[in-house]
Amino acid sequence: MKKIVIIGGCAAGPKTAAKAKRVNPEHKIELYTMENIVSYSACGMPYYIEGSVPSAENLIIRKPEDFEKQGINIFLNHKCTKILPNEKTVILNAGDESKKVSYDELVLCIGSKPYTPKIKNINLKNIFHLKVLEDGIKIKEKMGQSKNVIMLGAGYIAIELLEGFVKNGLNVTIIERGREIMTQFDPEISAIIREHIIQKDGKQVHFIMEDEIVEFLGKEEFEGVVTKNGKTLHADFCVIAAGVVPNVELAREAGIEIGITGAIKVDNRMRTNIPHIWAAGDCTEETCLITRKPLYAALGTIANKQGRVVGINVNTDENGVYEAFEGILGSAVTKYFNFSMSTTGLTETAAKRYAQHANIEPISATITKRDKAGYMPGSNNITIKVVADKRTGELLGAQAVGAGDADKRIYTITSALRANLTVSEFLHLDLTYSPAFSSTIDPLLTAAYKLKDLIDK
Amino acid sequence: MKKIVIIGGCAAGPKTAAKAKRVNPEHKIELYTMENIVSYSACGMPYYIEGSVPSAENLIIRKPEDFEKQGINIFLNHKCTKILPNEKTVILNAGDESKKVSYDELVLCIGSKPYTPKIKNINLKNIFHLKVLEDGIKIKEKMGQSKNVIMLGAGYIAIELLEGFVKNGLNVTIIERGREIMTQFDPEISAIIREHIIQKDGKQVHFIMEDEIVEFLGKEEFEGVVTKNGKTLHADFCVIAAGVVPNVELAREAGIEIGITGAIKVDNRMRTNIPHIWAAGDCTEETCLITRKPLYAALGTIANKQGRVVGINVNTDENGVYEAFEGILGSAVTKYFNFSMSTTGLTETAAKRYAQHANIEPISATITKRDKAGYMPGSNNITIKVVADKRTGELLGAQAVGAGDADKRIYTITSALRANLTVSEFLHLDLTYSPAFSSTIDPLLTAAYKLKDLIDK
Repeated sequence: MKKIVIIGGCAAGPKTAAKAKRVNPEHKIELYTMENIVSYSACGMPYYIEGSVPSAENLIIRKPEDFEKQGINIFLNHKCTKILPNEKTVILNAGDESKKVSYDELVLCIGSKPYTPKIKNINLKNIFHLKVLEDGIKIKEKMGQSKNVIMLGAGYIAIELLEGFVKNGLNVTIIERGREIMTQFDPEISAIIREHIIQKDGKQVHFIMEDEIVEFLGKEEFEGVVTKNGKTLHADFCVIAAGVVPNVELAREAGIEIGITGAIKVDNRMRTNIPHIWAAGDCTEETCLITRKPLYAALGTIANKQGRVVGINVNTDENGVYEAFEGILGSAVTKYFNFSMSTTGLTETAAKRYAQHANIEPISATITKRDKAGYMPGSNNITIKVVADKRTGELLGAQAVGAGDADKRIYTITSALRANLTVSEFLHLDLTYSPAFSSTIDPLLTAAYKLKDLIDK
Repeated sequence: MKKIVIIGGCAAGPKTAAKAKRVNPEHKIELYTMENIVSYSACGMPYYIEGSVPSAENLIIRKPEDFEKQGINIFLNHKCTKILPNEKTVILNAGDESKKVSYDELVLCIGSKPYTPKIKNINLKNIFHLKVLEDGIKIKEKMGQSKNVIMLGAGYIAIELLEGFVKNGLNVTIIERGREIMTQFDPEISAIIREHIIQKDGKQVHFIMEDEIVEFLGKEEFEGVVTKNGKTLHADFCVIAAGVVPNVELAREAGIEIGITGAIKVDNRMRTNIPHIWAAGDCTEETCLITRKPLYAALGTIANKQGRVVGINVNTDENGVYEAFEGILGSAVTKYFNFSMSTTGLTETAAKRYAQHANIEPISATITKRDKAGYMPGSNNITIKVVADKRTGELLGAQAVGAGDADKRIYTITSALRANLTVSEFLHLDLTYSPAFSSTIDPLLTAAYKLKDLIDK
């Protein structure tokens, strides 16, 4: 029997608790979270704001009482303020009280926090982040009373919020520093996404690219922004959706090693450098399975997988059989209404960057094709870009966007990347076919054929 | 320059012609077909009958003039009656005329024909097969005048026609010899499909299982059937959808080797045993990539892939670089309205049969889960069954059915099977995640987790 203390209650924490308890019901497990709820789908918040998920309650996966039934103790509204590794103890604040809690194994699932640029007057009322459920509830409330919103950033969260704001009749101005939105894609693929949004909802959505907010206007409440390029814009509220950074101060102070990405460094068992301290979820850095270099990805699916691995491994001793978390591919997906965008592995941009240090020669092919037989009702275009190494023929990554069935096709590439399939091997894949689901030669294979021709040239 | 003669004009033939011409525009290519059209989607016929594809014209992929423009000569209404390998000549009948055509390379794309059981009065009017476009047009016409139909067989084509008949208001009785429909799936998965159909459309659809038609009733026109179990049933017309068999008489007479499945045996370049005679599409047998044993699958996607391979290889000499067609996984998909059913690799049934000859121990896990986050509107259940070898942990196959997004998830397994991934490797796949597309742990991975637990037991 061990006493396992888990800090963090969104995804990795609850998963660790549940798995550890299932593997060994003898464990005493205590989970502390600074929020007033536990175990919820943070990724679902944009759809709650949008209105397709009717209540914030729907996002709650398991309630504290569900955990208690399983013999796991949940402590809400507890903020961990210090880790004392030598004493195997943590210090927690609950309201005005402070307490010391000892552990045999400590699991840090302390997550990420919104990246907050240094901008004048950033603490005005009605400037929001979207990180915890409370943020989502506040944004939804404000959205209901508003006509205009300014969004800083143009990544996944921004696109998901954009759908919600447009659906609810708002005019949205997106201000983005970079040349393109959705930089997890190659620029010409991002351009397809942006053009689609403009074509569909250009009356409500305005992109201001290569500019940034230098000042927020207003006395107590947000009234507008001034940009670097000299634009002054007014709106009812502002959302900062400029990505997240790992939440590591607590770990750093305790002497836990921080990796090159700024997140907690863990080995493939999810152990930190300090004995009996583990980490999982948005606070950790991962290894890219292709480059074998550190990569940071704050995603619910990774948090869940890592929680499962920690839950297994806290039961094993140094020499026992353990479950390894080998790494990630940077896979991600989102949608704008029925237009989906999905990616796995390296973009061409990332592959070229990688090629400066590795012996690879990136090559790519892009095709646009109907997602099912062209004569079937409801068939739609999808654009697929595949990237490979010209020297070995091995696949490096793929991106798929479009109103058609794009997202799950990227699953196929994920599987292929995991197994180091070459383009020549991939293009023979015996994919299922029916005109209701695909063309006789699936768009994935058409893209692979094109890439093979380029490799053979 | 070679003179390439292709016999067959549906899928493999046109693909061979187009690819061979692209690889070497110097070739003289002649394609002969007994039909009055060329290059059409036979797989789309059920959707033409159903009405979602408005016209039979929509199913035509390329017209003779499109081929002629590319420099390929198309001969419609030409039936090949004899191959003379020693003279490198074929004999063709066109109407009352007969002609001899010489070749440098001959490609047989002579397809398959409906399996026709020996039943009394099978030649009555209004007993149909669905093989060529003309059949589709006749069935659609008859359907429009009818209220009741009897179908013999319960495989892919039967299920696709069933959707069309139900949509058009007909009462359908399906008579099937076996214990379950859709025998490409394990029985308990087929049962889920059948139960779904009955639950949705039980008023119109009646299954008579473990019975067979012994006599067709009627004088000139079909009036009904008598079954082995003594049932007499009346209907306006009947469709025999009991599968297809390869069309090989022409090849057999010419001394071309026929494989154990009854289809033409080819090597991995798609060569028959006779020099300068190739075969592709529904008339050939394939190799199962898992068992390495012969497998017969008459599918448009395979025909297209093989046509491409022949089109490349007719250009290479004995010692040149060639494109190999290594084999198939038996992947297939169809749907009944929004309920999809998809399979790849071995079912548990097939794996157990295989285990009698090979050193494997099949094990399986089945899960039912929402296809996306349960709180998202439009999320639906899917059932996934994964099969592996307990001894090595290697995946052997998977089946997915349900009203949710099932079909493309099977693509992921296809990729994994091609690369011999183990369950332990598969369950870590970094699949893309967003609540609009999946649960944090995709149903595929949930199935793999369950299977891993069973393997480790």
